[in-house]
Amino acid sequence: MLRVAVAGALGRMGRVACSALKEATDVSYAGGLARTAVPDEQIVTDFDTLLRNGKPDVLLDLTTHPGSVEISMSALAHGVRPVIGATGWTPAECEALDRVAMKRNLGAMLVPNFSIGAILMMRFAEEAAKYFPSVEIIEMHHDQKKDAPSGTAKLTAERITAGAGPAQPPIHSVRMRGLLAHQEVLFGIDGELLTIRHDSFSRESYVPGMLAAVRAVMSVRGLQVGLDA
Amino acid sequence: MLRVAVAGALGRMGRVACSALKEATDVSYAGGLARTAVPDEQIVTDFDTLLRNGKPDVLLDLTTHPGSVEISMSALAHGVRPVIGATGWTPAECEALDRVAMKRNLGAMLVPNFSIGAILMMRFAEEAAKYFPSVEIIEMHHDQKKDAPSGTAKLTAERITAGAGPAQPPIHSVRMRGLLAHQEVLFGIDGELLTIRHDSFSRESYVPGMLAAVRAVMSVRGLQVGLDA
Amino acid sequence: MLRVAVAGALGRMGRVACSALKEATDVSYAGGLARTAVPDEQIVTDFDTLLRNGKPDVLLDLTTHPGSVEISMSALAHGVRPVIGATGWTPAECEALDRVAMKRNLGAMLVPNFSIGAILMMRFAEEAAKYFPSVEIIEMHHDQKKDAPSGTAKLTAERITAGAGPAQPPIHSVRMRGLLAHQEVLFGIDGELLTIRHDSFSRESYVPGMLAAVRAVMSVRGLQVGLDA
Amino acid sequence: MLRVAVAGALGRMGRVACSALKEATDVSYAGGLARTAVPDEQIVTDFDTLLRNGKPDVLLDLTTHPGSVEISMSALAHGVRPVIGATGWTPAECEALDRVAMKRNLGAMLVPNFSIGAILMMRFAEEAAKYFPSVEIIEMHHDQKKDAPSGTAKLTAERITAGAGPAQPPIHSVRMRGLLAHQEVLFGIDGELLTIRHDSFSRESYVPGMLAAVRAVMSVRGLQVGLDA
Repeated sequence: MLRVAVAGALGRMGRVACSALKEATDVSYAGGLARTAVPDEQIVTDFDTLLRNGKPDVLLDLTTHPGSVEISMSALAHGVRPVIGATGWTPAECEALDRVAMKRNLGAMLVPNFSIGAILMMRFAEEAAKYFPSVEIIEMHHDQKKDAPSGTAKLTAERITAGAGPAQPPIHSVRMRGLLAHQEVLFGIDGELLTIRHDSFSRESYVPGMLAAVRAVMSVRGLQVGLDA
Repeated sequence: MLRVAVAGALGRMGRVACSALKEATDVSYAGGLARTAVPDEQIVTDFDTLLRNGKPDVLLDLTTHPGSVEISMSALAHGVRPVIGATGWTPAECEALDRVAMKRNLGAMLVPNFSIGAILMMRFAEEAAKYFPSVEIIEMHHDQKKDAPSGTAKLTAERITAGAGPAQPPIHSVRMRGLLAHQEVLFGIDGELLTIRHDSFSRESYVPGMLAAVRAVMSVRGLQVGLDA
Repeated sequence: MLRVAVAGALGRMGRVACSALKEATDVSYAGGLARTAVPDEQIVTDFDTLLRNGKPDVLLDLTTHPGSVEISMSALAHGVRPVIGATGWTPAECEALDRVAMKRNLGAMLVPNFSIGAILMMRFAEEAAKYFPSVEIIEMHHDQKKDAPSGTAKLTAERITAGAGPAQPPIHSVRMRGLLAHQEVLFGIDGELLTIRHDSFSRESYVPGMLAAVRAVMSVRGLQVGLDA
Repeated sequence: MLRVAVAGALGRMGRVACSALKEATDVSYAGGLARTAVPDEQIVTDFDTLLRNGKPDVLLDLTTHPGSVEISMSALAHGVRPVIGATGWTPAECEALDRVAMKRNLGAMLVPNFSIGAILMMRFAEEAAKYFPSVEIIEMHHDQKKDAPSGTAKLTAERITAGAGPAQPPIHSVRMRGLLAHQEVLFGIDGELLTIRHDSFSRESYVPGMLAAVRAVMSVRGLQVGLDA
């Protein structure tokens, strides 16, 4: 059975991931990494201790950039495939990770958003950008979110540009009490409007994508970006 | 029958107003003012010529600020009640108009938005602001609109503040091909979101409010702001 | 300090209410009623046992109709003011409860929806109905919800009719995986559309309304319907 | 230059098409068919008279089913390629048209919706259906629309089923004053919602698709359904 460890195990996403791994039947939980050790939950503070408890096949790295760069590089150095859930990696960092993964003949995945709805929203936005002269993005999150625009909004904008849309579509960031994670992409042309909207109501929506990535990384060589393929 | 003249008669709103006045059964069209005369449609370029063709009871002033200040002041000076469709009037300008109207014992109305939906949106937003800690406004218009934020968005923000909401709710302005005039006001509190949205699909939606204002100004004394009362 | 007991204490709403009462500083938790006793949480199966543990001032009745009728009647008979969170009470049942409450000089409240956003949505819908010839309601809930249309949609339709809108506005019921509780009320007139939308993302959104109702019932005499007043 | 005639030339879509053809630079207007002749606009009542004025390359058939079947069959019989804008053609009728087109070595196109936004909405809906267990369609039109559900909604439902989605996704039909043509497709899965929405604000939005179809039919052989390919 596939052994999966979790970095950032005490964060909000990390907790969801640990629970999901413990409940899954075809993968097993191989411990966690965090700033504070929690022995009852096999959470340790450094990679060497984690390895001593049994080498995992995959490290699900749910820390944020730039910390995730060192953690995932270190995983590869120890022969563990990283599945990275962070946004913000630079092209140079991606290239460096790819080089190391290729050399060691291992897979690595960078998955900026594990939700199937968000992945489809971005794919559709890239496609629609070919046909509409006007594009704007409205992303809406709870007022505790510190960064703006969101990583998903920035990625969507990049995909739109890659899809032959405008170079830097405007991004509007709404921050409100009560909101969770929502995004609308609006496409306008004479006489009509196309809107693609994604609402994420709970972190549980990331679990199927996480498990799919963890399984997929085993048959990848080098770095693959996105679950889309 | 109530005689109504139109200032800004060749603009997009002015044309709609002139048609509506010609078709209405309880008011009559008393000519128009514009930068270019159109004799066939009784459109002249100055107030004196307009008066010579028969004094109107009301001047529906559909020019924009600051031009509308002089036109409406001039109407009052000639004993004609102004119904002003512009946004952007300063408190000092409003006060000056009110003073002149009171002195001449005439009514005047400043109606920043003639659409019943927009009026209700603003009224509801003012009311909801009492209960929600987070408020943001998203206004969306066609890409030919030059000003941002829209006058309606600014007014909505003022009403929200007046209704005990936050001082300057963020306004996001979307400009796209294909759009007409749309606005959303979002209210957030723990666990829930209330959204009030108005879509204006054609200028015809302004006609009932224009006619209501034209009738109402006859029984007003001094300046009344808004159709809401 | 106000002593509040909860009927339906083991239901989803009941659990949220019990937690909220335990955490509140100006009210105290006075035990619960459910089909199964949970001694550790002071949850008992009949009213007499509940009273023996100390008479509450208010019974927050979170059971569903028709069960809630007997429970709230029984509360009044024991001198305990009911705050009822159910929909579906008939006018005859409301009248009977009002009569008993008046006779005993006690208050009672029937609050079909404790969320401030839902209350405002219904209030605004009643108001907007005066001005728009077309009205339709779209309510959207998770696919585990058994009844359709929702109680809130039916109440909104009644309020619209009371507000001089059409007699039975169409209600569309969407049932989907992933949804929580959402409702849109659409108002159409020539050239424009007004939409009032409420999204409920968690049951925590009901807590402020529940606590407000529990406090308000102390100064009411007879039955009051709705938190709106 | 491509010569294009229009059937249903006096209908709302037909008028838009005739204007567009007259203004286009790479196609020319070759007259129209309608129940009433309008000599000034080269509109005649039967095919033979139309042909006598110069044979068109393409007949843009904007009549409705079942009338469109005879008209398009007759066009092919006269060597004119039909581009059909109707919904409601049966598989047997499509097959028959295809057979005749193949025999004459001519192209024919059946395009149920010429709007690029609607085409993308359907394409994306078919794709998303693979991933989401819950799907519902909400279509919203002005209250003068006689049929429900709309042709586009029925087609979207067929595409969803073809895309491995549920067999008959529920369709909700909203009919209101003030609305134009709008559709939402909602996709739900645990914790998230994906919405694809299309708003059509004017018939002008159909022009680019019409012209694209008229050009494309020249290089097609047999019947092609949809502009999508």
